[in-house]
Amino acid sequence: MGKGHAHSPQQVTSAHEFRPGDLLAERDTDDVSTAPGDREQTEAATGALLDELAVLQERLYAEGVGGGQRSLLLLLQGMDTSGKDGAVRRVVGSMNPAGVRITSFKKPTDEELAHDFLWRIDRALPPAGHVGVFNRSQYEDVLVVRVHDLVPESEWSTRYDRINEFERRVVDAGTHLVKVMLHISKGEQKQRLGERLEDPTKFWKYNAGDLHERTFWDDYQDAYQDALARCSTDSAPWYVVPGDRKWYRDWVLANLLVDALRDMNPTYPPADFDVAEQRRLVAALD
Amino acid sequence: MGKGHAHSPQQVTSAHEFRPGDLLAERDTDDVSTAPGDREQTEAATGALLDELAVLQERLYAEGVGGGQRSLLLLLQGMDTSGKDGAVRRVVGSMNPAGVRITSFKKPTDEELAHDFLWRIDRALPPAGHVGVFNRSQYEDVLVVRVHDLVPESEWSTRYDRINEFERRVVDAGTHLVKVMLHISKGEQKQRLGERLEDPTKFWKYNAGDLHERTFWDDYQDAYQDALARCSTDSAPWYVVPGDRKWYRDWVLANLLVDALRDMNPTYPPADFDVAEQRRLVAALD
Repeated sequence: MGKGHAHSPQQVTSAHEFRPGDLLAERDTDDVSTAPGDREQTEAATGALLDELAVLQERLYAEGVGGGQRSLLLLLQGMDTSGKDGAVRRVVGSMNPAGVRITSFKKPTDEELAHDFLWRIDRALPPAGHVGVFNRSQYEDVLVVRVHDLVPESEWSTRYDRINEFERRVVDAGTHLVKVMLHISKGEQKQRLGERLEDPTKFWKYNAGDLHERTFWDDYQDAYQDALARCSTDSAPWYVVPGDRKWYRDWVLANLLVDALRDMNPTYPPADFDVAEQRRLVAALD
Repeated sequence: MGKGHAHSPQQVTSAHEFRPGDLLAERDTDDVSTAPGDREQTEAATGALLDELAVLQERLYAEGVGGGQRSLLLLLQGMDTSGKDGAVRRVVGSMNPAGVRITSFKKPTDEELAHDFLWRIDRALPPAGHVGVFNRSQYEDVLVVRVHDLVPESEWSTRYDRINEFERRVVDAGTHLVKVMLHISKGEQKQRLGERLEDPTKFWKYNAGDLHERTFWDDYQDAYQDALARCSTDSAPWYVVPGDRKWYRDWVLANLLVDALRDMNPTYPPADFDVAEQRRLVAALD
């Protein structure tokens, strides 16, 4: 468990970055290399990071109230059962919900299909000062769409470049983008599907259709490889987060968000009023 | 502190209901009559309730995934600094953010003003299975609008009935509505305004305009009295939550939400698939 020394959020972040030329097949889904200790110790360390995350988020929100234009966007992708929903609950749930905008992208509606694939994405971007969370994203249009030939290759093959252009614009407008693939093994998926069938309070999470999607596992891995390699850019890199152990997944996600916000270093805005004058006025109130 | 015996969520809820004929002026802003003990003991009890709230919320969400049409809507009103934002952070923040929709209603935009006053409210109603939170609401249109004569009396005076009709429709469609006025004293507001001026990390919360609004304190209390009395109905009653002590405010809010969800008693949906067959299929996966 871990290397016996503490990793900074920056080091945890670097350890899980995916650069063009990297191979997804070489990433261990049960890697725990940056954990500060065993499961219990790691969960405690994650808790401390989530406390810091809440403080940093308030600063970002305050900066936005003060006219700042920056925001943070966490984009989550992963195979079925990879833990996207759990990550939202456990990591995103530590922040003030008033400053969080979560969007779960489903099968596109007729209205969405009547527009370019980035139309619905653009509309869901977080406002200034907010933290956005995408549960699935524009990448579905080069993943499920590619695996099932929902549009011709001549169309989807152009989307990598269009996504990169889109993301560059988003980043230039002040949004810090953290793109995460939650990476689980095929065996772990089987395990989780089985668990959902053992507990009646989890039946609602079970989709029989997931078994059909699973038969395309290798095609999805190939599609992820291309999406990660072609769209991991300097301004919007991809991170592959080992997902087989949920406690390690949460640890890495907390580090990614804290590292991003430390890097942004949001600041409480100065008073836009005369502090001494207002103090006098308040002191004189009845 | 308290009456020396434990109050159920239903009892706490009943104790703070506002019925037509009640007088806001007779409600103590620093009442702590249902607290289970001192501040520390009450905070611990609130924590336990918030844990239950998270469990109940998951059941509501699951019910929605299974096709259920019900939802919960918490509507928050109150004078400036009454603690609406703090209540969202501390009470709503205990729920899974994926199932929560928070809307802060500000001064209406040009587009909103081009529609009936209930248009923007309707668009913000929570989807099935979700918990909606309104930070301010349709009641602004019989509060600030009335106090400052933003529309003629012949217009705003019709809105109480229209709000009641609207809320009846919302309730009939499956939304459990919890309407809360956070009730603080004028002295407590002065105290909180002063605190925001003492701490540079709170300057962003300070609005010099609040001092001007404060000069209309009595007009606002009158407008609240009428809104509460005229729009507290059997299907959508108002609650006046004492707000001077934040720990008591949070205790009452947690009780209101838990009582509402216990009453709704959401249920995990049954499997919409053949469980035994799916177990066999999953067991046979590679």
